Amino acid sequence: MTKLLAVGTVAFDAIETPFGKTDKILGGSGTFVGLAASKFGVETGVVSVVGGDFPQSYLDMMNTNGINTDGVEIVKEGKTFFWSGKYHNDMNSRDTLVTELNVLEYFQPVVPSTFKDSEIVMLGNLHPLTQASVLDQLNGTPKLVVLDTMNFWMDIALDDLHSVLKRVDVITINDEEARQLSGEYSLVNAAKKIHTMGPKYVVIKKGEHGALLFSEDSMFYAPALPLAEVFDPTGAGDTFAGGFCGYLAKTRNISFENMKNAIIYGSNLASFCVEKFGTERMVDLKNEEIETRLHAFKELTQFEIES
Amino acid sequence: MTKLLAVGTVAFDAIETPFGKTDKILGGSGTFVGLAASKFGVETGVVSVVGGDFPQSYLDMMNTNGINTDGVEIVKEGKTFFWSGKYHNDMNSRDTLVTELNVLEYFQPVVPSTFKDSEIVMLGNLHPLTQASVLDQLNGTPKLVVLDTMNFWMDIALDDLHSVLKRVDVITINDEEARQLSGEYSLVNAAKKIHTMGPKYVVIKKGEHGALLFSEDSMFYAPALPLAEVFDPTGAGDTFAGGFCGYLAKTRNISFENMKNAIIYGSNLASFCVEKFGTERMVDLKNEEIETRLHAFKELTQFEIES
Repeated sequence: MTKLLAVGTVAFDAIETPFGKTDKILGGSGTFVGLAASKFGVETGVVSVVGGDFPQSYLDMMNTNGINTDGVEIVKEGKTFFWSGKYHNDMNSRDTLVTELNVLEYFQPVVPSTFKDSEIVMLGNLHPLTQASVLDQLNGTPKLVVLDTMNFWMDIALDDLHSVLKRVDVITINDEEARQLSGEYSLVNAAKKIHTMGPKYVVIKKGEHGALLFSEDSMFYAPALPLAEVFDPTGAGDTFAGGFCGYLAKTRNISFENMKNAIIYGSNLASFCVEKFGTERMVDLKNEEIETRLHAFKELTQFEIES
Repeated sequence: MTKLLAVGTVAFDAIETPFGKTDKILGGSGTFVGLAASKFGVETGVVSVVGGDFPQSYLDMMNTNGINTDGVEIVKEGKTFFWSGKYHNDMNSRDTLVTELNVLEYFQPVVPSTFKDSEIVMLGNLHPLTQASVLDQLNGTPKLVVLDTMNFWMDIALDDLHSVLKRVDVITINDEEARQLSGEYSLVNAAKKIHTMGPKYVVIKKGEHGALLFSEDSMFYAPALPLAEVFDPTGAGDTFAGGFCGYLAKTRNISFENMKNAIIYGSNLASFCVEKFGTERMVDLKNEEIETRLHAFKELTQFEIES
């Protein structure tokens, strides 16, 4: 069975949307990536850190979902990373109300020995040096390294980001970040420039407008499934990335053609993620639901031109 | 041969983009719709009005492209509608610098007798009463009536718009306008509400993010082709609509499945339109170029999930 290693945050989120608000609930990029990847029955290990305030029941839930949490360090005297945000009416923009780094501030990821031979590695949105330290711990070079990042690291650690990008196969990034990283407005030109930085594949996430996959000579576009209600967008991007990696791990095929399918599965899972608060929808998501929605994606995008 | 009737403006545009600026060049919704539809070899008639300052060479060009201009009234003592605009760096927003209605102010469209039996009618973005007057002149009910409109008419003539919408099969509208017309933020819910106003099909244009087609129980999404450079977006929406109508007219099939193809052809033609200023790219566009780009659209969107 292919091993998938996901490094990211395991956190508390408090979320306010036009539909309601939550107390501290389970969140974090590592959590969403892990839950999405676990749907594909691959051996998924999450590397992260939490505080003594983190409920064992959350770790149990992750284990029940097939996620190995040996790499989740528990700092007993520390507090778990906490983020709080409020979404605007259009759900496309949000204000961060609180960010408490807590144990994340001194996070030094340690890859469990059983995951040092992972074939697919997903480096969640963390400091580029932290991402690089994960690669340093692996035995040899993984089959595929996927990296997520954001404008914050471009602002404060651009050189470190460039260094780690040289070791990355796929970067996932949103459209504004792709423009910032490349200095190009056109996403086609942005992807071209980012290829020269290292990643052979560039995935540009456009939220409700879907996602683009670029290789050096091809491109593919997957729409987001138009939904009557987006309840809570938190974690959709990480769920997308987790679905992408999970599908590639399951099928053991990292060709561009198969990456198209992985992008569709990522979009598929993300469309569920936003239906409820936090991880709620992902925890009990059934395989039959995913397969049914795959038909919706086909209906939405496939056409048969008659000559 | 199917007859296609397009009502809209035939105008002068002066355009400024980050790539350059033009003097008064040929523009107008009727012009772009007609040029796009003419690529499908259907009998296309344009109904519009121009002033005595409008060059005969432009009409000759339209005729050479197979567009019937018998319905283009020439008001010798009047001046042609003139619009001037400047696009911002992102090409998604623009400022209108000049709008001179001129002969358009008193435009009373007259449908030539040879086009009163048109099977497909495209009502370009004009006052809803003007759009209705075109339908009043037809012999019977066309096979398909497509209407384009904008927020301006919702602001000043909403009742008239609602009246004409009852007689329309397909509405083309952008995302913000769909939200304004329906009072719904979600495009899925917006389309549902617009269906109750008359149109069985709702096409939502999202510019660089593509277009959505909704029927009462299905939806389809076509991306815009990502381009290295968008040179001038003027006319892209009308070209899209003209391609949509032209393909339906050529194939004589207005099923939802075939409308998917029509949406793809509309996006295909629009992707050419933006490559040069005004109508320049559309005038000499070859069928082989359209067919080659169709492959690009297939590459971009089609996938084959292995179970």
